[in-house]
Amino acid sequence: MKSCIDVDFSMAALDPAAAAQLQGDLDSARKKLYSGNEAFTGWVSVAKRRDLAEIERMRVAAERIKTQCEALVVVGIGGSYLGARAAYEMLAGSFANERAAVERQPEGVRLYFAGQNISAAYHRELLEVLADRDICVCVISKSGTTAEPSIAFALLKDELVKRYGEKGAAERIYAVTDASRGVLREEADANGYESFIVPDDIGGRYSFLTPVGLLPLAAAGFDPEHFLDGAEAAMDDGSLMEQAGNYAVGRNVLYNAGKYIEVFEAYEPRFAYFSEWLKQLFGESEGKDGKGIFPASLAFTTDLHSMGQFLQDGTPCFFETILEECEPAAELVVPASAGPPLAGKRLGDVNRAALEGVAAAHRKAGVPLFRVAIREKISPQTFGQMVYFFETACALSAYMMDVCPFDQPGVEEYKREMRERL
Amino acid sequence: MKSCIDVDFSMAALDPAAAAQLQGDLDSARKKLYSGNEAFTGWVSVAKRRDLAEIERMRVAAERIKTQCEALVVVGIGGSYLGARAAYEMLAGSFANERAAVERQPEGVRLYFAGQNISAAYHRELLEVLADRDICVCVISKSGTTAEPSIAFALLKDELVKRYGEKGAAERIYAVTDASRGVLREEADANGYESFIVPDDIGGRYSFLTPVGLLPLAAAGFDPEHFLDGAEAAMDDGSLMEQAGNYAVGRNVLYNAGKYIEVFEAYEPRFAYFSEWLKQLFGESEGKDGKGIFPASLAFTTDLHSMGQFLQDGTPCFFETILEECEPAAELVVPASAGPPLAGKRLGDVNRAALEGVAAAHRKAGVPLFRVAIREKISPQTFGQMVYFFETACALSAYMMDVCPFDQPGVEEYKREMRERL
Repeated sequence: MKSCIDVDFSMAALDPAAAAQLQGDLDSARKKLYSGNEAFTGWVSVAKRRDLAEIERMRVAAERIKTQCEALVVVGIGGSYLGARAAYEMLAGSFANERAAVERQPEGVRLYFAGQNISAAYHRELLEVLADRDICVCVISKSGTTAEPSIAFALLKDELVKRYGEKGAAERIYAVTDASRGVLREEADANGYESFIVPDDIGGRYSFLTPVGLLPLAAAGFDPEHFLDGAEAAMDDGSLMEQAGNYAVGRNVLYNAGKYIEVFEAYEPRFAYFSEWLKQLFGESEGKDGKGIFPASLAFTTDLHSMGQFLQDGTPCFFETILEECEPAAELVVPASAGPPLAGKRLGDVNRAALEGVAAAHRKAGVPLFRVAIREKISPQTFGQMVYFFETACALSAYMMDVCPFDQPGVEEYKREMRERL
Repeated sequence: MKSCIDVDFSMAALDPAAAAQLQGDLDSARKKLYSGNEAFTGWVSVAKRRDLAEIERMRVAAERIKTQCEALVVVGIGGSYLGARAAYEMLAGSFANERAAVERQPEGVRLYFAGQNISAAYHRELLEVLADRDICVCVISKSGTTAEPSIAFALLKDELVKRYGEKGAAERIYAVTDASRGVLREEADANGYESFIVPDDIGGRYSFLTPVGLLPLAAAGFDPEHFLDGAEAAMDDGSLMEQAGNYAVGRNVLYNAGKYIEVFEAYEPRFAYFSEWLKQLFGESEGKDGKGIFPASLAFTTDLHSMGQFLQDGTPCFFETILEECEPAAELVVPASAGPPLAGKRLGDVNRAALEGVAAAHRKAGVPLFRVAIREKISPQTFGQMVYFFETACALSAYMMDVCPFDQPGVEEYKREMRERL
């Protein structure tokens, strides 16, 4: 099967000898990833071995949520947050929750996010904005003990009980958590929350294609299987998987040559949270043992007017990875009053000229560039492809750096220091 | 006069000898900045030599905007965008435009932003969300020829004319542009738009304290003089200006030691666009001649769950600058159901424990940290102080790198390449 993603390496200016030298490492990384012996590699095949009964249960829950409320508050952080948010923003568009008619999610509820910070102002304002609308809560946490979602969930439970009573609150809480362990599992079982499972063999930042990402999106009107179909198409596309490996090699060649920053760039504001998802994926998978490429992101053309100068002329410590939306989600024509050369042009064509012009200018300045093109309109299917492509590339790249892509031992230290202070 | 900002250098672990060696460079940078001979240094004294008649004119325009509309669309990009957006987000809070009662801007209109991208989807969705509300447009551009605002302004003019006719449209357009030159100045004069001036001696990224930043915020209900009062307090606080110099020295010491990335971090989501403003300020001021510190930003605690691993254990190519809001804008107590140790604690105290715990953990891992504390509640006055502090530190730091803080020659190249393709 063919996916709609392809990667252009022609502007990466990779040293062929350096790339050739890493082929052995790539082969080893592939063997390791697909050996079946590595922990937390369940995401590799999750789209293929899909559990149709569980998916049907998600669809039923989503239908129930739609009858219960206008707004679903999704409580989670990190891997239990970024994937669903990235997809919602990309698919529902800018101002999704504010627009009266959200045409691309005609039957879904609106998603709000909580539990991703400890800000009293944020949570108070969220409760204000939801004051006159019916709500449900989807709480996502493997352990149930992470501080941020615990706090937000407690605040939201109080709100639910105040509005709907104890029994009514329990009917409006949907939990995504461990199958058998942890305080959230215990609470869900004790109170009869509808619940879904975070698989044991898939880590947080690789969990989008499980109920962690798919349940909230189902409630928002996007079919879970469409994301899985996309991931499966990516997986089955030998050419794309080859390119994922080449991208992993290319990143390592540049890293070894002192390029310590990867700047992810997209030309549509709807991609902003996908870049945040990429930052967790790469930053947390590679950033260990004193290694790793620092992932940064820019929203273009917005940030050409802030960071364009640096990219053209500043310290040459970075490379760029461009996410190209080849089929814009909408079209508009520049009105006559803008004058030449803009008037009469489609915005998509102007945006494309910017992308090509910037790439050419940066390449002339010596910046290495990867271009990841999405050749069909953004949809749940293409989103699933993007997720699977980058997960594969990231896991291979981390193995090539000789670090484990699936752990995060470094986050314990600040948590310990924080607990001491509480 | 005393400001409410101070900088803690105790966790920066600066080599005293290296810092001492740069004192001469700092002295030279100060002399240059305050010589009165350097172009584009008008921002240094703009708060002190304030034009009261112009400020009154802004207040009058703001009152008129409030009678005309519910939503003011601010059209601009880069320095004509980020400052106003940063202040609006920080002062009006999360969900400001969505909340029914926006208590902190009781008398103001809601601000929307356009002209900061070339996305057809974004602009179409913006027009949808504004379809049933009266609007005005504030277009901000020194030259009037920048592509993004030209496109957005043309689209919005069409919408205004459709709704209010030619004359009605002209009464709802407010221009901030050059005093005498450029297509926007000509158009404003020809059509009788109310207009304000971008001074010649202040560059885009240093222009927040002019009508560029202050007019939109006046319409949103924030008095222009309050921002200027804050900037003046910062300017007159000898100790803070001393610390701005020391921060410039510290940044250069770390840069010279191979720390190529500065990660700006705040623990409140309302600070996200201030970090974007900082990125332009530092990135565009320093990133030239192959030099400069790459500015990145993280929203904590959110991004501890994505980039925390890298900061603790990854490639040690960065330092951190923490923006501390010492007096939270709101308070909430963690409900009992969260259990110990969180239950009963104020969110502000938990957030503070996170900040202190993270700083301690990262310091133990060898990361240098600056801590910029804002000791009073966030307000237009404190925002003005923050702007002036960072502008001063940035200008000094760039001079110390021996680059001009006030030009951006590198952005011409991509614009030329883009024009060729149109």
